[in-house]
Amino acid sequence: MSLEKFFNAQSVAIVGASRKKGKVGHEVLSNMIAAGFKGKIFPVNPKAQTIKGLKCYADLESIGQIPDLVIIIVPAKLVPLVMQQCAKVGVKSVIIVTAGFREVGKEGRKLEQQVVQIAKRAGIRILGPNSLGVIVPTNNLNASFGGQLPEAGAIGYISQSGALLAAILDIAKASGIGFSKLVSIGNKADVDELDVLKALGADPDTKIIAGYLENINDGDAFVREAERISHRKPILLIKSGGTSAGARAASSHTGSLAGSDTAYECVFERAGIIRCDSVKSQVDYTQAFANQPLPKGTSVAVITNAGGAGIMASDAIERSGLTFAKLSDETVDKLAVGLPPAASLHNPVDVLCDALAERYEFALDVVLDDHNVDIALVLLTPQAMTQPADIAKAIIKIARQNPEKLVLACFLGVGKVEEGIRILREGKIPHYDSPEAAVATIKVMTDYVRWRSRPKRVVKLFAVNRRKVGTIIEKHLRQGAYEIGEAESKVILQAYGFATPKAASASTAEQAVSIARQIGFPVVLKIWSPDILHKTDVGGVKLGLNSPEEVMDAFDLMTYRVPKKLPDANILGVLVQEMVRTGREVILGMNRDPHCGPLMMFGMGGTMVEVLKDVSFYLAPLTAGEAKQMLVNTKTYQMLKPVRGQKGVDIGIIAEGLQRLSQLVTEFPQIQEVDINPYVVGPEGTTPIAVDARMRVEQV
Amino acid sequence: MSLEKFFNAQSVAIVGASRKKGKVGHEVLSNMIAAGFKGKIFPVNPKAQTIKGLKCYADLESIGQIPDLVIIIVPAKLVPLVMQQCAKVGVKSVIIVTAGFREVGKEGRKLEQQVVQIAKRAGIRILGPNSLGVIVPTNNLNASFGGQLPEAGAIGYISQSGALLAAILDIAKASGIGFSKLVSIGNKADVDELDVLKALGADPDTKIIAGYLENINDGDAFVREAERISHRKPILLIKSGGTSAGARAASSHTGSLAGSDTAYECVFERAGIIRCDSVKSQVDYTQAFANQPLPKGTSVAVITNAGGAGIMASDAIERSGLTFAKLSDETVDKLAVGLPPAASLHNPVDVLCDALAERYEFALDVVLDDHNVDIALVLLTPQAMTQPADIAKAIIKIARQNPEKLVLACFLGVGKVEEGIRILREGKIPHYDSPEAAVATIKVMTDYVRWRSRPKRVVKLFAVNRRKVGTIIEKHLRQGAYEIGEAESKVILQAYGFATPKAASASTAEQAVSIARQIGFPVVLKIWSPDILHKTDVGGVKLGLNSPEEVMDAFDLMTYRVPKKLPDANILGVLVQEMVRTGREVILGMNRDPHCGPLMMFGMGGTMVEVLKDVSFYLAPLTAGEAKQMLVNTKTYQMLKPVRGQKGVDIGIIAEGLQRLSQLVTEFPQIQEVDINPYVVGPEGTTPIAVDARMRVEQV
Repeated sequence: MSLEKFFNAQSVAIVGASRKKGKVGHEVLSNMIAAGFKGKIFPVNPKAQTIKGLKCYADLESIGQIPDLVIIIVPAKLVPLVMQQCAKVGVKSVIIVTAGFREVGKEGRKLEQQVVQIAKRAGIRILGPNSLGVIVPTNNLNASFGGQLPEAGAIGYISQSGALLAAILDIAKASGIGFSKLVSIGNKADVDELDVLKALGADPDTKIIAGYLENINDGDAFVREAERISHRKPILLIKSGGTSAGARAASSHTGSLAGSDTAYECVFERAGIIRCDSVKSQVDYTQAFANQPLPKGTSVAVITNAGGAGIMASDAIERSGLTFAKLSDETVDKLAVGLPPAASLHNPVDVLCDALAERYEFALDVVLDDHNVDIALVLLTPQAMTQPADIAKAIIKIARQNPEKLVLACFLGVGKVEEGIRILREGKIPHYDSPEAAVATIKVMTDYVRWRSRPKRVVKLFAVNRRKVGTIIEKHLRQGAYEIGEAESKVILQAYGFATPKAASASTAEQAVSIARQIGFPVVLKIWSPDILHKTDVGGVKLGLNSPEEVMDAFDLMTYRVPKKLPDANILGVLVQEMVRTGREVILGMNRDPHCGPLMMFGMGGTMVEVLKDVSFYLAPLTAGEAKQMLVNTKTYQMLKPVRGQKGVDIGIIAEGLQRLSQLVTEFPQIQEVDINPYVVGPEGTTPIAVDARMRVEQV
Repeated sequence: MSLEKFFNAQSVAIVGASRKKGKVGHEVLSNMIAAGFKGKIFPVNPKAQTIKGLKCYADLESIGQIPDLVIIIVPAKLVPLVMQQCAKVGVKSVIIVTAGFREVGKEGRKLEQQVVQIAKRAGIRILGPNSLGVIVPTNNLNASFGGQLPEAGAIGYISQSGALLAAILDIAKASGIGFSKLVSIGNKADVDELDVLKALGADPDTKIIAGYLENINDGDAFVREAERISHRKPILLIKSGGTSAGARAASSHTGSLAGSDTAYECVFERAGIIRCDSVKSQVDYTQAFANQPLPKGTSVAVITNAGGAGIMASDAIERSGLTFAKLSDETVDKLAVGLPPAASLHNPVDVLCDALAERYEFALDVVLDDHNVDIALVLLTPQAMTQPADIAKAIIKIARQNPEKLVLACFLGVGKVEEGIRILREGKIPHYDSPEAAVATIKVMTDYVRWRSRPKRVVKLFAVNRRKVGTIIEKHLRQGAYEIGEAESKVILQAYGFATPKAASASTAEQAVSIARQIGFPVVLKIWSPDILHKTDVGGVKLGLNSPEEVMDAFDLMTYRVPKKLPDANILGVLVQEMVRTGREVILGMNRDPHCGPLMMFGMGGTMVEVLKDVSFYLAPLTAGEAKQMLVNTKTYQMLKPVRGQKGVDIGIIAEGLQRLSQLVTEFPQIQEVDINPYVVGPEGTTPIAVDARMRVEQV
């Protein structure tokens, strides 16, 4: 789907245009005119003859031509009527600015549905309702009440908050940022973030995509599209609402670790989207992407006229994991010739507080000439003798001579450095209000470069017994049994190549003993019930049973006590299981996020998982590299590696477990949740064992 | 010591005053004159008759009176000469602006020592060298080259970086922040951060102390002074250089966790100092402390005209652990009457994007009237109809009517909100460039309030055998043995009330068996050598020996193998020890930071400590509350509490262990490092046991 008519409209009707200043219908019309729109503008308002010197129409029909774009600003309850007119006239693109729909409750939701139905039948695309509108500087189109037309530039912006867009426009203006398109998606009754993302991805004027989102409708489709686009255009998003969303997270015990915000983190990571935690950081990052080259490496050199500022930048560089550039001997020698004796010739290069423009120019030139330097950060504090404007010009000059190196500046101050900052921005040198903000931007850019150059994702497919799994899941769904218990969960896992302990179920103590003899002592007894998730809590697990007597005692106690605690639980028997004694306990899991899809989880196993919360997440399907990275991202990983004489475990084989589980949940979207806990991994050469497991399924 | 003469000087001589613009000697004189200094200014320069219309003197003597303050700006090598003149004339306070001393290497360091010697003999106090100077707005004293005299205000500033001070002055000016005193301490050859801290603490014009420090000379004294002052005046410090300092950290295995930056964190926490991670955040926080009341509680309400901004603020509030205010029913009812139907009446209160000043005024008035609200954050985005200036005035008005509540604002934007922000600042409403920055400030203020209202610190003193410990330490120091091995470390711990496993040392296998029989099997064998810190790594530990045969085998293997691995280690024998089998392993430790003093450590024990790095630190001596807090600050604590049916351990008794250790290291400053690892803690009612321990001592 294309948003062609929204972006390149040559005729725009404004239904609800108003003469009264301060009214939205007035602001939108004023903005349209003030922007110098080259096409035709048709104000529609039955009560007026002309508004702002333009002929006013009683309704859409009386215009006598089909406007490319209609903006609706009438009261909510009249919107369906106007939509019917649109349908009748043959309009195909509509912006509904009017608020008071889904966001105000049930009545509003009904009204919105009514509007969408009219649109669907007539093949009309709607932006909104509750949209601030659309702005396209190159088309002089300001179909919004967002204020003045911004400068044309490389950034396409998607916003789920109209009001916030006004602030972003104002901040962007001061930072010298220009836009290709701005789209306020409002309630997303029809056009949503995915549609706009696709449109901006295909738009040749858009080099960078930025946005503010509160939720994503279809995480899976969004990931795929964003991943494709990110390779060519950086995507920088603010995603708010993470904490309240977290509260709505699933209550099941491992699920509670995977708040929805975690899911969005995974989506962003997979798709190479740069997450911005505030409008300020978004503007900070965007500035650099829009005006500077992507860095070739991660090595940063700092030039400063204040030792303190240099130290702060150095702290930030080291903390963020960037490389603190080591200047070559040649560079140091060159600097020694041109800088005063008290200057610091090593990174951070301190040109001293009395440095004028020439000294900055010389130092930056020498430093950028060094092969060890990919990025230069120039700091300035305004001493009495400092000339910020001249220094800004010097920076611009040298940066232009080194177009393959990233150059950023931070002039610490406000009034005294104002002109210098303005000159920097005009000269396409991004400017930051603190060394820390500049370094955060460098970090984001180097991360993006690394993401772009990662190897192609190849998801390995294992030979599995898919049919067997399908049968078990189907059976459960038919019976309305949404929890798959330990025994059948393990059958499913076996079908996907997991090893499980030797086990069988017993319904009498004698049977339990006979199974135990076959397996060999010691054994474990576990209550078998689809209704009991946390068996340990109710005394439903007994470990290390070494003799027939112990097995009989445990069996009888369990079958006596558990039903007393949980009288409603349907108890199918008792599982007698091989005792897996050696190895580290980890957990493999999956929790399907309603917006973002299957979230794989890895972490420390046993009861520790809840205490230490040392877990990592990633979206399925996983590549081998991603599975390994999930391990590396936990501290648990440090305990799996050989430590102090202890043998390490086979990392590759745990990663393979994650890949197999990822294949399972990808092939069976009915699976909503899986826990393999503990997954016992022994030293290298041994096979890990899924000692306990459970799953939850749903009809999809 | 008082800095009286620096702050209230009535006559100032400038040695090295210059006619040449751009020279420091010129800038300082110009600043002195421009500030409207009411006292006398004596330029000293043998080559000039007058400078800037002031009579110029050939030297200090020819002035004919003793200046209260002398500023020296002559080249470094001439400074000793001028100092001798100062001594001769009877000057008592000198600022040395000249650079080129300690910071440029050995020669400079010698020169600095020379200067200090002259000063000491003559009873002269020096600020600097390499100082930007001193600024006291109420005295119209600008004895610096920091530019224009700032406004008078409540903030006293200490800076270790002169150049950075220039930036801070410039930013402060734009934020409407005024100063009582600004002191650039430079190389701290004499006057240091502690002297200035004391002076500002005693200064009635200073309500808030802020500063930028790269190191603290005497952490212990600084903590005591800062703790005393913090109760009356908030102290906000930037401490830079944390990462490179971290690299210099001790290499011993637990010491490596306690980088110097951790030590500073502990100093700051103990003393109630608010750590600022950038100049920006320091200005952000300072604004609020200077202009607003301290909050009575932690409950924050948000008022916004943009839903998106409100969500971002809510995220920040929840993430920072503040309370998201629940508005009373009465408040919601009142809001319902005055706000439009589509407005959100619950926190965050959304007054909608077309809100004018009256609506903001009404909403803020109602919200601040609510007993559940301690703090209000007012957000604004500039829509076409928004009137930022009027809204700013409304906020000021209502805030003044509620002097006991903290009110902050964030007008998102730049150009369109500029006037509004100016009005807010003039009206003493702190303004932030993002909701996140405002919330960070609220967090810092509530933390400070909590610190101030913490109970009085009472350090319990246990009855111990101090003499015994003294004897052991003295013996080691006499012998130049700085490592105290396991056996004697345990004797020391016993003297301070710790339980240790039954143990004795053996020099033959037979002796080991006989000891094992007395203790009872199973036992542990450990190599005993002052030269072996990590016994496990060299096969010097054997656990769970169940019989005389196993003990003999272990003894012989150990005494055969260990010397082969470490031929130079002095092996004193083998320790035969009771096997402590049940309980959780934790670590208690101490590492004495050269600047900040004894850093207590608590964390997960065994080899896990290095892997999980789940440790907490606090400065000794510890109160019972602080010791408990050290436990709570780790994730390990979650495993010590009762979890899923397992019994918890006695938290109080572990805390007591930390307190006892804290007493030991406080009473014996010779102890540089202690590790009790593992400290095995059983279920409630049992006594924890120090299973292994080592210490390092030094002559002090």
